[in-house]
Amino acid sequence: MNEEQKNAKEWFFNLRNDLVNTLEIIEGKKFNFKDWSHSGSGGGTMGSIKGKIIEKGGVNISTVSGEFSDKMRSRIPGTEESAKYWATGISVVIHPFSPLIPSMHFNSRYLKTNKSWFGGGVDITPATPFEEETKNFHNKLKSTCDMHDNSYYEKHKKWCDDYFFLKHRNEARGVGGVFFDYIDTGDYKSDFAYTSSIGSFFLEYVKYIFDKYSKEKWTDNDKRLQMVKRGRYVEFNLLYDRGTKFGLETGGNTEAILMSMPPLASWD
Amino acid sequence: MNEEQKNAKEWFFNLRNDLVNTLEIIEGKKFNFKDWSHSGSGGGTMGSIKGKIIEKGGVNISTVSGEFSDKMRSRIPGTEESAKYWATGISVVIHPFSPLIPSMHFNSRYLKTNKSWFGGGVDITPATPFEEETKNFHNKLKSTCDMHDNSYYEKHKKWCDDYFFLKHRNEARGVGGVFFDYIDTGDYKSDFAYTSSIGSFFLEYVKYIFDKYSKEKWTDNDKRLQMVKRGRYVEFNLLYDRGTKFGLETGGNTEAILMSMPPLASWD
Repeated sequence: MNEEQKNAKEWFFNLRNDLVNTLEIIEGKKFNFKDWSHSGSGGGTMGSIKGKIIEKGGVNISTVSGEFSDKMRSRIPGTEESAKYWATGISVVIHPFSPLIPSMHFNSRYLKTNKSWFGGGVDITPATPFEEETKNFHNKLKSTCDMHDNSYYEKHKKWCDDYFFLKHRNEARGVGGVFFDYIDTGDYKSDFAYTSSIGSFFLEYVKYIFDKYSKEKWTDNDKRLQMVKRGRYVEFNLLYDRGTKFGLETGGNTEAILMSMPPLASWD
Repeated sequence: MNEEQKNAKEWFFNLRNDLVNTLEIIEGKKFNFKDWSHSGSGGGTMGSIKGKIIEKGGVNISTVSGEFSDKMRSRIPGTEESAKYWATGISVVIHPFSPLIPSMHFNSRYLKTNKSWFGGGVDITPATPFEEETKNFHNKLKSTCDMHDNSYYEKHKKWCDDYFFLKHRNEARGVGGVFFDYIDTGDYKSDFAYTSSIGSFFLEYVKYIFDKYSKEKWTDNDKRLQMVKRGRYVEFNLLYDRGTKFGLETGGNTEAILMSMPPLASWD
């Protein structure tokens, strides 16, 4: 591991701890942790919490290495001379019990082949009307992105909108956020700064939104909307999500891959 | 339409009515029906019921014709000279409220290109221990198949077991049944007899199982098992089911395609 790899791995580890501590305080309950090994080398730690405020939350970190299959290799930059890769990352999904608080998703990774780059994103999926808070979310996110590159927010918001879309329903999964990959400007520090800012933004957003809405009353109809929206979330993850598809096809850890599934979902 | 097409279409229509009447008596409530049109020509009728005994049930019939895309055409018998097809069929999924009654699935179709054949199947997905009833189900099913061809049960049971399997969990979706396609012995009457016997078997099984278990008490743990099993059902349908995948990819009717989704499902 070079300094850049160590630095990325350590940041994800620390962010994991910050998120876990934050969510444990919100819920008043501890996480369960479970280690797993990668078929190549390395592995990860799944962290999960189930409670009355956070109905289901998962915080996974992993650092793995191995060789890409021929099929994968053709799609991944920097693999012309060698199929070897090294990757470290974090992946978080929170399904709040209250239908007034959106499901929240964040992930971030640093990948190294003959090239190296950051990828990741953050997005939210509210179930009930959320216009004001959506504006608020995007404004905060834009100002976070703008600190690093004025073009990032627009580009990465569009990427997110295009990606989290259910074609068969002609419907967005949620209200967007940012989604990015192959961030490699040649300046590791600057790329790391952007990626880590998105992580810090997510941590702050989680605190803000639980603090604001955890005690608000909701109706049976709000809950019904949440259940249906979670059904859409399931549809997206199983039909379109490239991480899920790739993970399951390549014999990844099913439990870690499907950690993002909601605790309860419904279909009309 | 030749006599064979008319005959198949009529049988599916009558079976639909028998099933609907049976389920309406079980639930003490009427079905809702909704017609839809096919992008080629023809269309179908979705029937759905939501109640206290049948938490969610769907009975769809359709008769459609059109031309296969090049991609599909290469996989379908009898399309060497023309991509035209005609198809009629029925598709049924029942998710009972009681966790003691399995989810039940049945479908059957008659397809005509330059060749013509029957396809279909029946299978059940119990959530709680069901050994005796599973034996019972398979015994009755075997004797139904044996009336037509002594080789059918073994062959079509294996096809069912191979098909309804969740690779990523190394786990069967349910306890099997039969699954068959391309049934074309050259004797339409005999092939029709087999297909229609499977339909009649399903109708009788539905009556039997609701009558036997609708009033039996179950526990919270039984319900929890059912919710998790339904999650697996969702995973199968979105990750593997060829009807779902084909339907959504080719811009089919999303509501009809996803009628099979359970009303409520959970993930640990």
